[in-house]
Amino acid sequence: MYSQVIEKRAIDASVVDGDLRLAVDGAVVEVAAVWLRDACTDAVSRDAVSGQRLFNIVDLPADLLVREARLRGDRVEVEFAPDGHRSTFELAALLAADEPAPLTDSRTEQGKHLWRTASEVSPLISHDWADYLTDPAPALREVVERGFALLRGVPTEPGQVTTVAETFGFVRETNYGRLFDVRVEENAVNLAFTGLAISPHTDNPYRDPVPTLQLLHCLHNASVGGESGLVDGFAAAAALREHDPRAFEILTTTAVTYRFDSPDAHLSAVMPLISLDQAGRIREIRFNNRSMVVPRLHPARAREFYRAYRAFAERLYAPEAQLNFHLGAGDCLIFDNTRLLHARTAFAAAGGRHLQGTYADLDGLLSTLETHQETR
Amino acid sequence: MYSQVIEKRAIDASVVDGDLRLAVDGAVVEVAAVWLRDACTDAVSRDAVSGQRLFNIVDLPADLLVREARLRGDRVEVEFAPDGHRSTFELAALLAADEPAPLTDSRTEQGKHLWRTASEVSPLISHDWADYLTDPAPALREVVERGFALLRGVPTEPGQVTTVAETFGFVRETNYGRLFDVRVEENAVNLAFTGLAISPHTDNPYRDPVPTLQLLHCLHNASVGGESGLVDGFAAAAALREHDPRAFEILTTTAVTYRFDSPDAHLSAVMPLISLDQAGRIREIRFNNRSMVVPRLHPARAREFYRAYRAFAERLYAPEAQLNFHLGAGDCLIFDNTRLLHARTAFAAAGGRHLQGTYADLDGLLSTLETHQETR
Repeated sequence: MYSQVIEKRAIDASVVDGDLRLAVDGAVVEVAAVWLRDACTDAVSRDAVSGQRLFNIVDLPADLLVREARLRGDRVEVEFAPDGHRSTFELAALLAADEPAPLTDSRTEQGKHLWRTASEVSPLISHDWADYLTDPAPALREVVERGFALLRGVPTEPGQVTTVAETFGFVRETNYGRLFDVRVEENAVNLAFTGLAISPHTDNPYRDPVPTLQLLHCLHNASVGGESGLVDGFAAAAALREHDPRAFEILTTTAVTYRFDSPDAHLSAVMPLISLDQAGRIREIRFNNRSMVVPRLHPARAREFYRAYRAFAERLYAPEAQLNFHLGAGDCLIFDNTRLLHARTAFAAAGGRHLQGTYADLDGLLSTLETHQETR
Repeated sequence: MYSQVIEKRAIDASVVDGDLRLAVDGAVVEVAAVWLRDACTDAVSRDAVSGQRLFNIVDLPADLLVREARLRGDRVEVEFAPDGHRSTFELAALLAADEPAPLTDSRTEQGKHLWRTASEVSPLISHDWADYLTDPAPALREVVERGFALLRGVPTEPGQVTTVAETFGFVRETNYGRLFDVRVEENAVNLAFTGLAISPHTDNPYRDPVPTLQLLHCLHNASVGGESGLVDGFAAAAALREHDPRAFEILTTTAVTYRFDSPDAHLSAVMPLISLDQAGRIREIRFNNRSMVVPRLHPARAREFYRAYRAFAERLYAPEAQLNFHLGAGDCLIFDNTRLLHARTAFAAAGGRHLQGTYADLDGLLSTLETHQETR
């Protein structure tokens, strides 16, 4: 056993049953030999440029053990048996990571500001386009934390919405094109392209992978009506979990089919309305009354499902849950389509309301945000 | 109760506890009133052009019942209470759909040809580019059923790989670009861009949504080595479930982090190695020794996880599991990146091997396949 004092803490390193054992001020941290070897970052284990792992699990001895562990300043040096490989680890990292539960996952509800009522995100914050171009981080962080951000003063050039997407990521092209026009069309293949009111919904739930971000850019809006609305689906699901756990359980465990057919597209996806991650955290909402196909269930289960669906819908449709605003020329809304529902009130075809929309993905946005945070 | 004989079957329609009850040759099919109403496709319930549902669950009476049901030829006419709404349904559809379990989902292992050994898909089928352009359905169907298709005689113009993707869907642009060059690079940010052997893996597991399809187009390949390999991850997972159910359970329930960092990208995703759908079917494989970060687990769990990981890896790396072939100039491989692992042997930088790759998504491919099947 090797002992020393670091930052006034008494630390021992020893080997117990072939695993590393660290004792810090009496508290014990045990680290499996195979995990340690897998985490080794020396030159033969990781690529110097990319940091990628160079070996496979099958390259390691199946009977790997820690033969010896010794403290060296703020590091611990480990020798493995039977292969004699030596690795050095920072003590602080080993002590900090004693089974963190659950894993950090920015795609889940974890660490986000869930807003159950619109008043929590009112008055609306907006970001001037010029400021955004100088530093996009504040707006992008809002997309992660609140699920949306509003840019103002975006040039009202047609096609500009894809330029906005390209400031942080990449356009997800679909059968609707690289961008789509939201205005009144004759014989619309989708109700979005009519003047009808559209109740809160997530887009393209029939697509898999679903677009994780949507952008809506207003070129002009002189119509009466056509107000925009946003609802936090994660917050509604969290409230359902709290107040009606049975409904929450049904909606997280019952898969439904979402389906869309047009002359040139046949799309379907099978998913529950609320998806959870392995740790039980809310991860994705799909909610769309227009395209959901509920499977035939035995009558008792069908009644239970529809009761749960109604309970969730009532929360999502509650007037106080919906953040309402008027998108004017030059406004561009960016929102998380796996979390927020969006809606609009009815508007008259005459007068003119013309938005352009596009889809993009959260991976690019999160990457850009991390890059900007790093360089500050 | 209304009775009649259709296709020599004796059918009765009645109402029991407010639900529809159909008796066919003595066997009983019960259909919940609320499901029936939700499935109604009349002009006030569905848009005539798009077929999209026009009402919300909260628009329906919470105490909805079937008041009366009567047979009309091959249809059943239903009157609901309390609102008096009337709907007509095809009897055949109602009788066919008595709780189908599980839902059809072409993203899962369901209905696919899982190949546990390469011999099951040898000799390799290929599709001539000209034939493919005339009728892409046979090749696209192979991507769905076997996880891959090989096109031959694709023009060896740089950038052609995105044209191939656009025959059935849309390019998924990423930080690697709309397409990426696979050839030896100095100071490669990714081991893919070196001459090193790459063991079987799925691409971009650190991305969410992960690209569901990958295309690799060979512009020239004069190098010694650099053979391509494919392994069916669904088949290996199914074999693990059969022979080592404990390992399968651990890999489907333990989330790991996949992580990639380069100067311009920071990507991470939290997922298990094997993802299942709600019905327990295999739905997605993420397997990449280079980028997987296993969380700290208590030593006993860590040992169990690594034992399971090794058992899965041994199946994936088994020589008989891997389909090997040489991609020559004009060959283009399309494969399902949520199911198949791909690999290559080492090759010398000299001589020259130049592939171009791109990502795309299964939703577009499945839609195009359905459109072509429909029009035949």
